[in-house]
Amino acid sequence: MNSEAPPLNNVLLQWGSPPSGSKSGNKSAEAAFTASVAAVVFGDGSESGLYPLTKKRSEGAIPVAANYRLVDIAVSNCINSNITKIYALTQFNSTSLNSHLSRAYSSIGLGKDGFVEVLAAYQSPEDQDWFQGSADAVRRCLWILEEHPVMDFLVLPSYHLHRMDYQKLIQAHRSSNADITIAVSCCTRNQNRGFGFLKVDCENWVLEFKEKPEQELLKPMEVEGSQKSKDDFCYMSMGIFAIKRDVMVKLLTAYFPKANDLGSEVITGAISMGLKVQAYIYDGYWEDMGTIEAFYRANMESTRKTTSGFNFFDRDSPLYTLPRNLPPTTMTDAMIVDSVIGDGCIFNRCKVKGSVIGMRTWIGDGAVVEDSVVMGSDIYQMEGVKKSRMDKHGMDIPIGVGEKSHIRKAIIDKNAHIGKSVKIMNRDNVQEGNREDRGYIISGGIVIVLRSAVIPDGSIL
Amino acid sequence: MNSEAPPLNNVLLQWGSPPSGSKSGNKSAEAAFTASVAAVVFGDGSESGLYPLTKKRSEGAIPVAANYRLVDIAVSNCINSNITKIYALTQFNSTSLNSHLSRAYSSIGLGKDGFVEVLAAYQSPEDQDWFQGSADAVRRCLWILEEHPVMDFLVLPSYHLHRMDYQKLIQAHRSSNADITIAVSCCTRNQNRGFGFLKVDCENWVLEFKEKPEQELLKPMEVEGSQKSKDDFCYMSMGIFAIKRDVMVKLLTAYFPKANDLGSEVITGAISMGLKVQAYIYDGYWEDMGTIEAFYRANMESTRKTTSGFNFFDRDSPLYTLPRNLPPTTMTDAMIVDSVIGDGCIFNRCKVKGSVIGMRTWIGDGAVVEDSVVMGSDIYQMEGVKKSRMDKHGMDIPIGVGEKSHIRKAIIDKNAHIGKSVKIMNRDNVQEGNREDRGYIISGGIVIVLRSAVIPDGSIL
Amino acid sequence: MNSEAPPLNNVLLQWGSPPSGSKSGNKSAEAAFTASVAAVVFGDGSESGLYPLTKKRSEGAIPVAANYRLVDIAVSNCINSNITKIYALTQFNSTSLNSHLSRAYSSIGLGKDGFVEVLAAYQSPEDQDWFQGSADAVRRCLWILEEHPVMDFLVLPSYHLHRMDYQKLIQAHRSSNADITIAVSCCTRNQNRGFGFLKVDCENWVLEFKEKPEQELLKPMEVEGSQKSKDDFCYMSMGIFAIKRDVMVKLLTAYFPKANDLGSEVITGAISMGLKVQAYIYDGYWEDMGTIEAFYRANMESTRKTTSGFNFFDRDSPLYTLPRNLPPTTMTDAMIVDSVIGDGCIFNRCKVKGSVIGMRTWIGDGAVVEDSVVMGSDIYQMEGVKKSRMDKHGMDIPIGVGEKSHIRKAIIDKNAHIGKSVKIMNRDNVQEGNREDRGYIISGGIVIVLRSAVIPDGSIL
Amino acid sequence: MNSEAPPLNNVLLQWGSPPSGSKSGNKSAEAAFTASVAAVVFGDGSESGLYPLTKKRSEGAIPVAANYRLVDIAVSNCINSNITKIYALTQFNSTSLNSHLSRAYSSIGLGKDGFVEVLAAYQSPEDQDWFQGSADAVRRCLWILEEHPVMDFLVLPSYHLHRMDYQKLIQAHRSSNADITIAVSCCTRNQNRGFGFLKVDCENWVLEFKEKPEQELLKPMEVEGSQKSKDDFCYMSMGIFAIKRDVMVKLLTAYFPKANDLGSEVITGAISMGLKVQAYIYDGYWEDMGTIEAFYRANMESTRKTTSGFNFFDRDSPLYTLPRNLPPTTMTDAMIVDSVIGDGCIFNRCKVKGSVIGMRTWIGDGAVVEDSVVMGSDIYQMEGVKKSRMDKHGMDIPIGVGEKSHIRKAIIDKNAHIGKSVKIMNRDNVQEGNREDRGYIISGGIVIVLRSAVIPDGSIL
Repeated sequence: MNSEAPPLNNVLLQWGSPPSGSKSGNKSAEAAFTASVAAVVFGDGSESGLYPLTKKRSEGAIPVAANYRLVDIAVSNCINSNITKIYALTQFNSTSLNSHLSRAYSSIGLGKDGFVEVLAAYQSPEDQDWFQGSADAVRRCLWILEEHPVMDFLVLPSYHLHRMDYQKLIQAHRSSNADITIAVSCCTRNQNRGFGFLKVDCENWVLEFKEKPEQELLKPMEVEGSQKSKDDFCYMSMGIFAIKRDVMVKLLTAYFPKANDLGSEVITGAISMGLKVQAYIYDGYWEDMGTIEAFYRANMESTRKTTSGFNFFDRDSPLYTLPRNLPPTTMTDAMIVDSVIGDGCIFNRCKVKGSVIGMRTWIGDGAVVEDSVVMGSDIYQMEGVKKSRMDKHGMDIPIGVGEKSHIRKAIIDKNAHIGKSVKIMNRDNVQEGNREDRGYIISGGIVIVLRSAVIPDGSIL
Repeated sequence: MNSEAPPLNNVLLQWGSPPSGSKSGNKSAEAAFTASVAAVVFGDGSESGLYPLTKKRSEGAIPVAANYRLVDIAVSNCINSNITKIYALTQFNSTSLNSHLSRAYSSIGLGKDGFVEVLAAYQSPEDQDWFQGSADAVRRCLWILEEHPVMDFLVLPSYHLHRMDYQKLIQAHRSSNADITIAVSCCTRNQNRGFGFLKVDCENWVLEFKEKPEQELLKPMEVEGSQKSKDDFCYMSMGIFAIKRDVMVKLLTAYFPKANDLGSEVITGAISMGLKVQAYIYDGYWEDMGTIEAFYRANMESTRKTTSGFNFFDRDSPLYTLPRNLPPTTMTDAMIVDSVIGDGCIFNRCKVKGSVIGMRTWIGDGAVVEDSVVMGSDIYQMEGVKKSRMDKHGMDIPIGVGEKSHIRKAIIDKNAHIGKSVKIMNRDNVQEGNREDRGYIISGGIVIVLRSAVIPDGSIL
Repeated sequence: MNSEAPPLNNVLLQWGSPPSGSKSGNKSAEAAFTASVAAVVFGDGSESGLYPLTKKRSEGAIPVAANYRLVDIAVSNCINSNITKIYALTQFNSTSLNSHLSRAYSSIGLGKDGFVEVLAAYQSPEDQDWFQGSADAVRRCLWILEEHPVMDFLVLPSYHLHRMDYQKLIQAHRSSNADITIAVSCCTRNQNRGFGFLKVDCENWVLEFKEKPEQELLKPMEVEGSQKSKDDFCYMSMGIFAIKRDVMVKLLTAYFPKANDLGSEVITGAISMGLKVQAYIYDGYWEDMGTIEAFYRANMESTRKTTSGFNFFDRDSPLYTLPRNLPPTTMTDAMIVDSVIGDGCIFNRCKVKGSVIGMRTWIGDGAVVEDSVVMGSDIYQMEGVKKSRMDKHGMDIPIGVGEKSHIRKAIIDKNAHIGKSVKIMNRDNVQEGNREDRGYIISGGIVIVLRSAVIPDGSIL
Repeated sequence: MNSEAPPLNNVLLQWGSPPSGSKSGNKSAEAAFTASVAAVVFGDGSESGLYPLTKKRSEGAIPVAANYRLVDIAVSNCINSNITKIYALTQFNSTSLNSHLSRAYSSIGLGKDGFVEVLAAYQSPEDQDWFQGSADAVRRCLWILEEHPVMDFLVLPSYHLHRMDYQKLIQAHRSSNADITIAVSCCTRNQNRGFGFLKVDCENWVLEFKEKPEQELLKPMEVEGSQKSKDDFCYMSMGIFAIKRDVMVKLLTAYFPKANDLGSEVITGAISMGLKVQAYIYDGYWEDMGTIEAFYRANMESTRKTTSGFNFFDRDSPLYTLPRNLPPTTMTDAMIVDSVIGDGCIFNRCKVKGSVIGMRTWIGDGAVVEDSVVMGSDIYQMEGVKKSRMDKHGMDIPIGVGEKSHIRKAIIDKNAHIGKSVKIMNRDNVQEGNREDRGYIISGGIVIVLRSAVIPDGSIL
C-alpha cells in the first residue's frame, strides 16, 4: 500500500453515493409489481371519427408524426412503464395493425415474459357476432386474458397522444386499494368531451359520472394547491383506467353481462354500485386524436419547437415502432421551416413549412407544402412509372407530390399520387365535403386525400 | 356459362403471358420465379371435423406430432419450396394461430422479402359479415393480396400432412401455361372424399369435376407407365391448387362474384367455362387430417418406424415451428416403445407405447399410455398445485397423467389434468358420445379429453 | 344501486389483497437499480482444465445438460436477476461462443436496453498482444465497458453451475456501501480451491485473502446461527464479485496498471489497500465445473431426481439458450433410467442409464449407455453416410452410438462417430492418458471421446 | 512452381466437377447453386489507410452515407445476390463490427440457412499469434469454413462501394470451370492501384499478374466491342474473387502453407502454377474506399443527384443495416442543398450544402456545413449537458455542431462536440497534420475531427 491511499479514500467518498432506491422494496416484489399488470389497448369500432383515414386500416395503424403509427404511442408508453403484457383488441380491418405490431414488437423491448398480442374479433360456435363494443370485446376475450395471472388490467384507447408513466397510475391504484382508478385530465384546453366527467371528493374518490360538468365544479386549477377545500371537484375522464382483474371479471360476467361499452355502461354502473373508484390526476400533455380535426392539430403541434406539443425526442421514454432500414433523406435544394421529416425522403427544389412529412415522401421541383400532413409512401416509385405493372391506376403519376404543386392545410394519406401543378388548398373554403370518387374528402376545412388516390395534373381542390 | 365467355378468352390471352425467364435457368429469373408466388393457407370455417380440438383454437393451431401445430406443415412446405410470401386466412378463434405464426416465423426462414401474415376476418363499412366461405374470404382480402405483385397464388388447406415441393407444382403449372393447376393424389388408400375427383385426359388437362369417380376410370396406378393410353383418368383432388393471379381476380369479381366456395363453385365453374385446368399428379405421402379419425391415424403413423408415415426427420425439408427453450426430458425409469416424445417431458416409472407425447408432458409413477396422443402442457405444474391461485378448477390434480393411470386409444388435449388411477380406454366401446360436461367426447371410438379438462382420480372413461 | 352490493363487497374483500411490494420504493428507482449493473462474464484463458472439451471451442460454448452451453447458465442467471447488460469476454476460440450468444439472445429476454455482447480479444495500434489475464482483458475493454453509464460491474466466471439471484448480491453490495462484494460459499463439499479463501469479520467485511484456510477458522456451518461470535470466519471465494465501476477503473488504471489477474492481484491488492470489501454468503447449490471431473460430476448430478443437483425445471428462473426447432425424439424400444434426454434424439432398441444425452443423439439397436455424457450432434446423419461428400473421415460410421456398443463413465463430445460393438469403459482403469491420435483422452478415469472423432467398429477403450 | 504440379493437375481434375444442375434451370439446382457459395468478407489488418477513423473500430464499422456502416455494402450485396452464408473476418477492434453485424442481420434477409458470422482472431493452443494476413486468417479459419459444404468461396474486401450481382460472377466462374475468377474493373477513373493488374487473353483467361500495367495493354474501353482482337488486355483487379473451395484448401495448406496474403502471394502463385484463372469484367460503379481521400470522395459523390455516384435508393437491391427506431428529423429553418441526411437529426436555423449528415446530428442556430461528412451521434444530448455525469470531458459542449460554427471539407467522426463559433476549414491549407491531442488530424487536406473529440468554442482549425 502506498501513499496514495488518502486521496483514493477521498475519491471513494465522492464515488460512493448510495444508489437511488437501494433501500426500497426488494427486487422480486417490484418484478411482481411490473408483471402483474396487463394492458388492453382498444382499437376501434366500426364508426370512427377518423374516417377516411380508417377506410382501409384500423385506427391504431394510422401513420402519425412521420415515423409512427397511432398504436405505437400506447404500446411505447406501456413498455416505458415496464408493462410488457399487452393485448390489442381490434375488429375493424385488423390486418395492417396485426402486421405492424407483430413485426414491430417481436424483437424489441418486451423482455422475457412480454408480448404484444392482437386479439382480433373472431367467430366461434358460441359467438357468431362481431364485438358489440368494448365491454363485449373484453368479455369475449376473457378466456384469453385470463391465461396470464395478472392482478390488474390497464385499459387504454389507441388514439391518444400522451406520455404517461402508467406505473404511477398503477401505484396510486394499488395504494388506495381502489377497485377501479380512472385517469383524469386537469387540462381545460382539450375540447373533446367524449369520455365524460367525473365528480370526485377531496380524496379523489369518484362520486359520480356526469355527461356534462356543472361549471361551478370544474376547478381543475386548484389541484396544485396543498390545502384542498372540502368541495368536490369535477375532472374530465381520459378513457384510461386500471381495474382489478377480478372486479373486471365479475362486472362483465355477473353484474353487467349485457353491457356493450366499458366506460358508459360498466364503469358508470360500478360507480353506482358503490365500488371504490379513484381518480388519478394527470397534468401532462394529452391529446385525444379521435377526430380528423384533433388528429390534424396534434400533428401540427409536433412541428413547433415549443413545449406545448408532444416531445418525440425524449431519451428516457422513447417511442418504439417498426424498425426501418431506409436510405438517408436526400435534398437537392430545400427550404424547410418548422417541419418534421420522416426517414428516407427525397426532396427536390421545394419548400416545406409547418408540415409533417412521412417516410419515403418524394417532393418534386417547385413544389410547396404548408401546414400539412403528408403520410408518405410504402415504396419508392420515382422512375419507370409508365412501365410499372403494379400501378394500374396511376396514369403515369408517381407517388408523391408532383412538380410545382402547392399543398396547404391538407392531410395526404399514404401512397397518394399528387400530379404536377396541383393546388390542394380548399380554395372554396368548404367545411365538409365528400369527393371520394375524386380521391378526397373535406372535413373541418381540412382536405384529406385518400390512400393511393390519384390527383391528376393541374387539379385544384 | 354465360355470354361473357368470349371476352374472357380474349382476356385470357393477354393474361397468360409465360413467366419471363422460366426456361432461361439464370439466377434472376429463378429469383423472380420464386418471388412471384404467394401462398394462401386456409384455416377453417366455423364447422370443423376436428371438433372438439377446435373448441378454443382454429384448426391450424392444433398441436400435432408432439412439437408442431397443424399449420406448420403447410408453412414449412412453403418455406422449403422457397415460397416465402404466405397468407393465413382465418376467422374462427384466430388468436392462438395468430400468436403462433407471428412468434414462430418472425425470425425464421423467410428471407428478405418473406412474410407470414394472418388475414383475420374483419368488419368494414362495406363488409359487415364474416367470411362466407373460402371464395368470399379471398375475394374480401383481394385488396391485401394485391399488394405484392405476384404472378400466381398457391391455395393450400392447413390440415394436410404431406411434404410436397410446391415449386415443382408451380413449374408444371407455368410450363403448361395452365390457368389453374390442381394437385391430385394417385393414392387410393386415402378414404377422404372431401375434395372430389377430376377426370383428366392423357395430357393431364382436366375435363370434368366429379363428385364421385366412375370406378372404371380410377386407374391411378397406370400413372407411372410411359405409354399412357388415350383413355381418360380420374384422380382425387387434394384441395391444393395454383392459379394465375389475374385469373383468380377475374373469377372472383367478374364471373362468380357471389360464389362462396373456391373448390366446388369457382374451380368447378372455371372448368365449365373452358379455362385451361391442369392436374398435377402427386404420389407421395398425403393425409388429410380434416377429421378426428384421420388426425388420430396420422399421429399413429408418425410413431411407426416405417416409410409409410410422414418423416419428421427429413434434413432437406425440415419442419419449422415456434422455437423452444425447454429443459431436456428427464426419465426416472421409463419403457418406451414406438413412440414420439416432445421436448421437455418428465417421465417417472411409466410405460409408453405407440404414442405421441407432446411438450412438457408429465407422466406419474405406474402410468401406462398406449396408442394415444397426449398433447402436452403449456406450463410445468408439478408441485405446489394446491396453493396455486391460477388453477381454480384443478382440484389438486396437476396437469399431466396421474399415477397408475392407464390411457389407451385416446387424444388428450393440452393442459388436461388426468388424476390418479384413471382409466381412459373407452371400456363400453362407445363410437360417438358427447360428455363435454365431464371433460371429454368420444368420436369414432376415440376418447378425446378436452383442453384443460380435469378427470378426477379413479375415473373410468 | 341494488341489493347485491353487500355480497359484492364481501367478495371484494377477499379479492382485494394489496399487491406485495406496492408500497416499496417507486418504480423508476428500481428500474435505475436494475439498469445500473453490467455483468462481465469471463470465458477463459488459453489453459483450461476442461481440455479436450476446449480443443475447438471456448469454455462457455461447451454443451452441458443435454440442451445448453456452459455460458447459458451465467447469462440466464443475469436475465433472471434482471441484469440485461451482459459482456462476454473471450479470446480463445471465440467463434462458437460468438455464434451461440448472438443467435441465442438476440430476441430473448433482454428487454429494451439489454444486450449480450462478445468482447473478443483484438489487436489495436496500442495493444499488439492478446489479453494477458482477466485484469488485462477488462482493462483493455474499459473503453467499451464505459459506454453504458452503469454504477457497478458484476464479474462472473462462465463455467459455474448455480442459480443465484444476483440482485440480492447487488443489494447487499449497495446497502453496505462496499467497494467490492465477493460471493462466498458456505458449502464445504466443494473441493475446488481455485478462488482462494476470505477471512471475514462478524459483519462480513473481508479482512484478508488467503490461499489456504486455517482449519480452525473454517466454520461455515455457524453462519446460520443467529448469535455470531466476534470471531472471524473463513469462506471460500466463488470468483463472483460486484465492484463499483469507478473503483474498478481506478484499480485497473491507477493502482494496479500492470496486474494481469483480477482475483489474485487486483482484488487482493484492494483488500490490502484497505478498500471496503464485503463477503456475500451464498448457501445454494454451486458447482465449479472448471475441471473434467467437476464437469462430469455436475452432469451426473443433473440426472438424479433429488434436490442435490441443479434443478433445470425451475419455472421462476428458467435457463435460456439457443431456441430450437428440432423434431420430437423417437424411440423404438428404449429402457431409460435416471437420465436426461435432449431434443430430437433417435433411440432404437437400447438401454440408457444415469446419463445425459444431448440433442440429436442417435443410438443404435442393442447399445447400452451408462453413467455417461453424450453431447449429441449438430446434424442428422442416419442414412446415406457412404455417399456423403461431407463426411470424408467418417469411414462409413455415422454420428452417434453404433449398434451393440457399450459406453460407461465416458464423455462423448459432439459429432463423434462411435462404431458398432465398441466398448468404451476404460477397461484397463487408466487414470490419465492422451490418445488424441486415436480420438480420445482419459482424465481422472473418465474417457473423453473427442469432437467428431471416429471410433472404429469393435474398438475397446 | 515445384514438382508437385502434376499431381495438382490430377487433383484439379477430380476437384473440378461442374456443379450439378448448373445448366438445368430447375429450382432445386438453383437452390443448390445459391447455397453452395460462402462469402468471406475481410475486415482489415492493423494498418489501415482510413486512420483515424479506425482508431476505435474496425474498418467495416466506419459509418458511411449517413445511415450505414462500410461492411453493410458487402453484406447487402451478398444478400441481394442470394448469397446468405457470410463470414466476416476481423482482428482489429472487432467489437463494434461484431455488435453491428449480430444485431443488424440476426432477423433480416438471411433466410432459413443463412448467417453472418464474425470470425474474430483467436488464440488457440496451436496458434498463439494474431492473423498474419488474409491468407493466414483464412487458413486458420478453414476448420470453421469447412463446416458448411460449399462449392466456392467468394472473397470480398469490406471497404468497397459498389453494387455487383455476385451471382453473375459465380455463374461465369462455374460455366468457365475456372479454379479462380477475379473481378476486374474496366473503369479507368479509379486511381487506386492497390490490387494490381491482370493481363488476360481474349477469352478472359488471366495470363499474368502485374504490379503496374504496360500502358499499351490498358485498353479497357474495347471491352464493349463485339469483335475483340486477339491482343491481350490488361485490367485492374478489384480484390474480389471466387475460388473453388477445394482449390482454396489445397493452395493454403499444401502449396503455399506459409503465404500470408491471399492476393499477392496465393493468387499470384496459383497463376504461376498454371491454374485456370478467369477475369470477370465489371463495368459498374466501384469505389475503393481504402483511404481517407477515397472515403471522402465516395461520400461526396453520394450527395450529387447524378448517376455517377452510388445509388442508395435502388429498390431491387437495397442496402441493409441495423434497423432503427429513431424519431423523425426536425428542422426549424434549414436551407439544404445537395445533401444526404440520416435519420433523426435536429436542425435549427442552419445551412447544409454538399454534405453527408449522419444519424441524430444536432446542428445549432447559424451554423453552416459545406462539403463535409458529419457522422452523427449515438445519443441525443441536447439539454442538461452540464449536469450530465456521463460526459466528463464535454466541458458543457453538447455533441453536434454548435451555434454559428462553420465546417467546410471536413470529416466529423461520431459523437464529436463542436463548440460555438468554431471554424473548421483548414484555413492554413495544411495537407497532412496530426493534432490528435487537440482532437483532429489533417489528411490530404481534409480535416478529420476524432470520435468523441471536443472542439472548444471559437476554435479555428
